[in-house]
Amino acid sequence: MAMTGVLRPGHVQIRVLDLEDAVRHYRDVLGLEETGRDASGRVYLKAWDERDHNSVILRQDDRAGIDFMAFKVDSDATLDKLEADLRAHGVTTTRIPAGELLQTGERVRFEIPSGHQIELYARKTFVGSELGQKDPKPYMAKFDKGIAPMRLDHALLYGPNVDKVLEIFTQVLGFHLTEYVTLPDSDVKGALWLSCSNKAHDIAFVIHPEPGKLHHVSFYMESWERVLRAADILASNDVKVDIGPTRHGITRGGTIYAWDPSGNRFETFWGGNSSYPDLPPIEWSWEGLGEGGGLDVAARKMHETFLTVVT
Amino acid sequence: MAMTGVLRPGHVQIRVLDLEDAVRHYRDVLGLEETGRDASGRVYLKAWDERDHNSVILRQDDRAGIDFMAFKVDSDATLDKLEADLRAHGVTTTRIPAGELLQTGERVRFEIPSGHQIELYARKTFVGSELGQKDPKPYMAKFDKGIAPMRLDHALLYGPNVDKVLEIFTQVLGFHLTEYVTLPDSDVKGALWLSCSNKAHDIAFVIHPEPGKLHHVSFYMESWERVLRAADILASNDVKVDIGPTRHGITRGGTIYAWDPSGNRFETFWGGNSSYPDLPPIEWSWEGLGEGGGLDVAARKMHETFLTVVT
Amino acid sequence: MAMTGVLRPGHVQIRVLDLEDAVRHYRDVLGLEETGRDASGRVYLKAWDERDHNSVILRQDDRAGIDFMAFKVDSDATLDKLEADLRAHGVTTTRIPAGELLQTGERVRFEIPSGHQIELYARKTFVGSELGQKDPKPYMAKFDKGIAPMRLDHALLYGPNVDKVLEIFTQVLGFHLTEYVTLPDSDVKGALWLSCSNKAHDIAFVIHPEPGKLHHVSFYMESWERVLRAADILASNDVKVDIGPTRHGITRGGTIYAWDPSGNRFETFWGGNSSYPDLPPIEWSWEGLGEGGGLDVAARKMHETFLTVVT
Amino acid sequence: MAMTGVLRPGHVQIRVLDLEDAVRHYRDVLGLEETGRDASGRVYLKAWDERDHNSVILRQDDRAGIDFMAFKVDSDATLDKLEADLRAHGVTTTRIPAGELLQTGERVRFEIPSGHQIELYARKTFVGSELGQKDPKPYMAKFDKGIAPMRLDHALLYGPNVDKVLEIFTQVLGFHLTEYVTLPDSDVKGALWLSCSNKAHDIAFVIHPEPGKLHHVSFYMESWERVLRAADILASNDVKVDIGPTRHGITRGGTIYAWDPSGNRFETFWGGNSSYPDLPPIEWSWEGLGEGGGLDVAARKMHETFLTVVT
Repeated sequence: MAMTGVLRPGHVQIRVLDLEDAVRHYRDVLGLEETGRDASGRVYLKAWDERDHNSVILRQDDRAGIDFMAFKVDSDATLDKLEADLRAHGVTTTRIPAGELLQTGERVRFEIPSGHQIELYARKTFVGSELGQKDPKPYMAKFDKGIAPMRLDHALLYGPNVDKVLEIFTQVLGFHLTEYVTLPDSDVKGALWLSCSNKAHDIAFVIHPEPGKLHHVSFYMESWERVLRAADILASNDVKVDIGPTRHGITRGGTIYAWDPSGNRFETFWGGNSSYPDLPPIEWSWEGLGEGGGLDVAARKMHETFLTVVT
Repeated sequence: MAMTGVLRPGHVQIRVLDLEDAVRHYRDVLGLEETGRDASGRVYLKAWDERDHNSVILRQDDRAGIDFMAFKVDSDATLDKLEADLRAHGVTTTRIPAGELLQTGERVRFEIPSGHQIELYARKTFVGSELGQKDPKPYMAKFDKGIAPMRLDHALLYGPNVDKVLEIFTQVLGFHLTEYVTLPDSDVKGALWLSCSNKAHDIAFVIHPEPGKLHHVSFYMESWERVLRAADILASNDVKVDIGPTRHGITRGGTIYAWDPSGNRFETFWGGNSSYPDLPPIEWSWEGLGEGGGLDVAARKMHETFLTVVT
Repeated sequence: MAMTGVLRPGHVQIRVLDLEDAVRHYRDVLGLEETGRDASGRVYLKAWDERDHNSVILRQDDRAGIDFMAFKVDSDATLDKLEADLRAHGVTTTRIPAGELLQTGERVRFEIPSGHQIELYARKTFVGSELGQKDPKPYMAKFDKGIAPMRLDHALLYGPNVDKVLEIFTQVLGFHLTEYVTLPDSDVKGALWLSCSNKAHDIAFVIHPEPGKLHHVSFYMESWERVLRAADILASNDVKVDIGPTRHGITRGGTIYAWDPSGNRFETFWGGNSSYPDLPPIEWSWEGLGEGGGLDVAARKMHETFLTVVT
Repeated sequence: MAMTGVLRPGHVQIRVLDLEDAVRHYRDVLGLEETGRDASGRVYLKAWDERDHNSVILRQDDRAGIDFMAFKVDSDATLDKLEADLRAHGVTTTRIPAGELLQTGERVRFEIPSGHQIELYARKTFVGSELGQKDPKPYMAKFDKGIAPMRLDHALLYGPNVDKVLEIFTQVLGFHLTEYVTLPDSDVKGALWLSCSNKAHDIAFVIHPEPGKLHHVSFYMESWERVLRAADILASNDVKVDIGPTRHGITRGGTIYAWDPSGNRFETFWGGNSSYPDLPPIEWSWEGLGEGGGLDVAARKMHETFLTVVT
């Protein structure tokens, strides 16, 4: 009851073209903390307010993009149950052994109809934040090292069959739909924002012909002022910005989209509506997404890169 | 799974000494919207980002305080199940018929060992926000009418037997403990912050000899700057402030405590940690609550009113 | 000594194509207060933190743009002295009689080599702010009526001969140059930011073949959050945004550029460097203005409209 | 004309009981940059947005307090003229040779009737900010090292004869009175806020029987959020806070007062009204200072320490 089952986005594995360039970006510019490297060369990082060992894993490859996105569930029993439920829904699952990712337990992996690999897992080593668990101080220097988001917040994924994706997330995994966009002159939901919490979204999808594509991985900022500071830091590090600072009409969150050195888009995101499963989702028309400010409250237009640039 | 069962604080019924004074405060200074009055004279209000018909009910009485606090659950089935679970746990429950509160379904009421009346309900009329459900605009004048919090956020209640309260909320209702304070030279948890979501808290308790007491009802502000604006508006309306603007070490939220015309404390609250049931709660010592900044990061002292002034 | 001579931008007279459309924009969207209309039909407005009778005057015409921009000086003696100094510098001046603008004393008007009409005046009726002059409250509802800037801050004007304009403002009127941009492959200052105070700028110029053009009139916002609120209000009123929210590298101020219903650009501006006449101006290359983020820290590019759209 | 004569607070020399404790505070907690030490052991610091070599000088002594506060003037000629004007006004002046303070030219020192040593000087080595003078980046790590104020903003000094102090600052030095407090049941100005710019104040005085006392030295913060961050950093370094975060009604600035390790109060200050010499000062009654929120908008009371704790 209350917060159970699927809890939150737990980790994403991102493919980067040059590992050390990527580490410099995610560690020194974005300001994540490097928490480990594994035998295969992957680099693990976490944000300062995250308590589990890692949330971002970088893997060098000759093609940018996302390998998989994982959600932490509340128990081994939930992991078993959700695996069974997925299979009952016709979704093929596989088990990745504990330890395949550093400090991470067994994972249930499955491909969703948009072509993305999604994972569930119940265990990842609690390392805590540097503030500690007893009488914590309100400040540490890590808050201000680079952009320094609080956490991995969500990802936006592009691929086909988002109607079937919606079924899996809402009927099997317990997510609720918070906002959606209908395609032009149509009732078809072409873009979905989904939450397993009372956050504005924990994952989102946009319909796209190519499967398995990454639009962006999003990191949470504590304030709109921290979004501006992110812009300042990006500029000072010659990191190219795509959109923002602005507000999304969808989710009402403040945002900057920018690209890592491999061309993977990331977001520094602030605020956003709270959401609850009993509240009807907010509907956006295609015009609402563009001219109506769903994407960009200030510019109120469709940015061409939003629909075309993915990895 | 995910957000299920108990969803959120749904309504509080507050006793006020003079109804029209109270309406002026909650409507014109705090900036809630009046949504109805019932035959018994009670006044119903909601915040601008709330979608259900009411969240604050004012009842005139010769004694200030809180009549009851209620949580919305996700379905009638959950309501039935939680009622059964409460009874199995030894808690007496009663059903309040639908319609006893305007636009609100049947409620399951029970007294917890701290002497407070808590309610669960599954239905309250969805009225939406003025922004609407389709292609909403990002702004409406209501955002700036009075202090204009987004929502009822939580309440802090004072009473005895908080250990037994903890059991009910965590073992029966599915809440998780996010932070707690131990009494001086003791392991006894004397103060509890509890969440049924990934908010920092949805309800909190402090041990106190008198049962059924209200420390404060809290309303959510979108930013630290809006907390300062609240201070400005309170000052301009000669509303007495208790504590703040400051940050609580506990929850990390920004805060002002102040009193309504009847002496009921309310809070304008911003931010706060996210919480998840798999993360261990943060522990505060008694000294941590006071000198350690648990209550007030800036002043780092125990404010005497915090422990003594309740309604 | 200290703040003497030319004090601040006092008023601008803006040409609008439809007076009532313009009033709706400047009064209801931007949130200025209408303080009067004169026999010729001009409408006078002021911002909430301005104490003199008016700062923006709207005049209906069949061509948008700016009629004149005026600076308040500290005394009649200064007015006389500056008029003499201007003439000694070879600038033709004329006197506009007191009362030609409502509640405004005699003005010394002169055309500068960029083709703009500039005025100096020493007297305008003090009307105060609604907060009053004794024991003022910290808040009034006017702070939140529309975008509600604190004041007219500066204007950016486009025209030829900015080198000669620089001479007049620094050698005659006592301004200091705070930042400038050199033209491509050149030492020629093609854009100037000038201050008569310790503000980042009180007036600015960009070289342009057509004389007397208006790039934008700027209004001051108390915070970066208020700039976002401006974006929200503009969007909700279907006002087209040109650039922003972002930070200018030049001045370090937060900004939104948008257009009034007649096509006159205005800015909602926050922050900005302090400036002093003893500090050397900051130099920007042409690439620095564009790719270096001088115009837009986030996008780091030259927006084509910046150089081409003026009224 | 415009900004001439006295430009801004240039430096303060503060007496500290333990030099290295003080350096740790001003450099590591407050976040000023150490720019030098002289033969007599004094330590020189500056804030990140200051361009001259130093603004805070720490001198070890067995008694805390302020040795002197100095203002930079625009030229040697002004220095000579103001010295002559001071003498004509009956103020004794002495010349301190260039180089007595590191990187600082000749200073004109004089005691004002409140018992404080005030200095004027025209030259201090321009060292610039780390961002540089050409195509500056918008961010450097120094922005976030400690509290990191932008600049020395003003000081509040306590002593007798503030009426005579007012004369010197307004009639000789060209400051204008921006706000003042009258003593109880009296027209006597007991507290003065004075500006030589369009800042809310560059120096302030409160009447007090003991001469030459320091109430606080103030440092400027870019936003209200940075004031909260200052509170967090102070708490994390166990620095005792006196008042705040709150807003002063007087100046409308956001504030925290706290004490350095020697007991000298300092302020982290944000915002504040703009001021101009043609605008009448705002008047505060004694009740307005306390209950009216002149000192503290939120608490609206006289804090006892405000009147009694000085160094």
